[in-house]
Amino acid sequence: MKNKASLQLSCPIPASEYDSIQLAHGGGGRLTAQLIDRMFLAALGNEFLEQAHDGAFLTMDTADLAFTTDSFVVDPLFFPGGDIGDLAINGTVNDLACCGAIPRYLSLAFILEEGLPMEKLWQVVLSIKKAAEKAGVKIVTGDTKVVEKGKGDGIFINTSGIGECIKGTRIAPERCRPGDLVLINGSIAEHGMAILSQREGLGFSPAIKSDTASLSAMLNDLLHQISSVNVLRDPTRGGLASALNEICGSSQTGIELLEDKITVSEAVRGACEILGLDPLYVANEGKVLIILPEEDAEKALKILRSHPEGAQSAIIGRVTDEHPGIVRLRTLVDSTRIVDMLTGEQLPRIC
Amino acid sequence: MKNKASLQLSCPIPASEYDSIQLAHGGGGRLTAQLIDRMFLAALGNEFLEQAHDGAFLTMDTADLAFTTDSFVVDPLFFPGGDIGDLAINGTVNDLACCGAIPRYLSLAFILEEGLPMEKLWQVVLSIKKAAEKAGVKIVTGDTKVVEKGKGDGIFINTSGIGECIKGTRIAPERCRPGDLVLINGSIAEHGMAILSQREGLGFSPAIKSDTASLSAMLNDLLHQISSVNVLRDPTRGGLASALNEICGSSQTGIELLEDKITVSEAVRGACEILGLDPLYVANEGKVLIILPEEDAEKALKILRSHPEGAQSAIIGRVTDEHPGIVRLRTLVDSTRIVDMLTGEQLPRIC
Repeated sequence: MKNKASLQLSCPIPASEYDSIQLAHGGGGRLTAQLIDRMFLAALGNEFLEQAHDGAFLTMDTADLAFTTDSFVVDPLFFPGGDIGDLAINGTVNDLACCGAIPRYLSLAFILEEGLPMEKLWQVVLSIKKAAEKAGVKIVTGDTKVVEKGKGDGIFINTSGIGECIKGTRIAPERCRPGDLVLINGSIAEHGMAILSQREGLGFSPAIKSDTASLSAMLNDLLHQISSVNVLRDPTRGGLASALNEICGSSQTGIELLEDKITVSEAVRGACEILGLDPLYVANEGKVLIILPEEDAEKALKILRSHPEGAQSAIIGRVTDEHPGIVRLRTLVDSTRIVDMLTGEQLPRIC
Repeated sequence: MKNKASLQLSCPIPASEYDSIQLAHGGGGRLTAQLIDRMFLAALGNEFLEQAHDGAFLTMDTADLAFTTDSFVVDPLFFPGGDIGDLAINGTVNDLACCGAIPRYLSLAFILEEGLPMEKLWQVVLSIKKAAEKAGVKIVTGDTKVVEKGKGDGIFINTSGIGECIKGTRIAPERCRPGDLVLINGSIAEHGMAILSQREGLGFSPAIKSDTASLSAMLNDLLHQISSVNVLRDPTRGGLASALNEICGSSQTGIELLEDKITVSEAVRGACEILGLDPLYVANEGKVLIILPEEDAEKALKILRSHPEGAQSAIIGRVTDEHPGIVRLRTLVDSTRIVDMLTGEQLPRIC
């Protein structure tokens, strides 16, 4: 086992040995063991992974846990602002944080396509390492499968995660109440447009960057200071519109959004206009919707803004009992329109 | 939400509506919600899944947990004795059981290929339901992604699982000690040969059936009655040979296997001979290696044999300090040969 000090940035399996993934790397024999030892353990090794068991033994500090899973099939694997590796860590970390939990332990399972360049896999592993360290989570158990060329698409990743629930918090979509305010920690639609412009070879200048980020530290801080938070939700696939529609559906409340409070960067707005997309439906990966009583909203804003991920936080709407189950947008010209759930597929394989 | 009583065996999304999976079923919008509600919640729904949150809230009975993950890419999806659905449940359940834990909660994440017949997915979901009920685990959180036709292969499944460690047990490969005996709960190589004969269209008669099964009840019983069990390991990919080599490597002990004690069914032996495969390297899915002190071996055999999954249990070898790190087989003609780890890929996509 290599120790951390000896971790190299160059791929630990040189091209002269194997320049790409072979079926045998998923066979459970010697090549699987080599891949695990030289690449995964070298980069991600810790006392849990080194148990080299069918699973990890964990001792938790509380009996109240959050548990979540996500598979990542993003295309392309690398995009402005991130790659499938940090996306897979941040996505699961944020799902746990949105349960009101402190993310602790992650599993990491790869489905690799035969012929995947070894160097690409190594870049993703390094990105995973960096994102996990930043988010304060440990990868404690893993799995590697390989499928024949043409039966996969480079790299698919599943991460599942366990978090410890923060005492006193009760986060659930159905706890959304009339009078509550809706906050978001910054501008929307960046992840989806970064993927799309990379995929379609659209050279927007400046390049639109994904907002992928761990929200754990910011939300942890928020929940420790404000116990009245009712709903946390990361508006990923389906965007802001779909997330808010789900919340309205669960809680049988309505939400009124204020268009002039929702920030969309100029580059994203321009790209959306060219492609005929509504930014309300475009995926985010570093954003969270926070719904809480009005009296705590200003304090919450202050806390959110003290974190880099929340510097642009704003109040963007209000919960109402007037149109239960429905999200309405008050537009810039002071008319209103209904913001429905996403129908059909806007952007496939965005995460 | 449908309640259990109304669960139909026919596909809840009729062919007249959608006869196959569309990209939009993974888009996070209305079609994703429909798939979850009408298919996954209808079959698998419980108080955890119905929280409809980014993750599940769990309250554990102990702070000592086991956590594991596995992706399943088996080809074909349906094979004699099982399918990818029960395989995905039993595989993760058995990994937890082999940690000396009682499996409790599973996550379930699908990567579906566009064009997958809806009816096939429903058959797999029903199989998951049945296997989870049999193993006594709950599916508490999930995810669904869809990739374009030709970028996946029907259905890939990831299951991750949380189990509660049984008090007083200390299971680890490095705890294997000279003098310990090696037990297995039945005949070997059935899963691998079932997959291979189905895949290659080899019509062995009688058909070779996969041994996929949950070992949780049997191992739970064993560990509650015998606290001296040192190692549990399910010999899946790479077969008996690879699993024992890993154990010898971790513990720096040797293992002597007795060929005449290892059961291989006549059908499996015949198929292996025709195909030039060594059954010691062929995958199992319902078998477990149990290593424990000699004085408890007979008691263990009795317990194992009292369970249907262990009716054919036998002592197949002994741990020794004579050839550390090496597995040796005493053959039927009383010579010995070294049983090395699997090199190269014997059977791809076996699980």
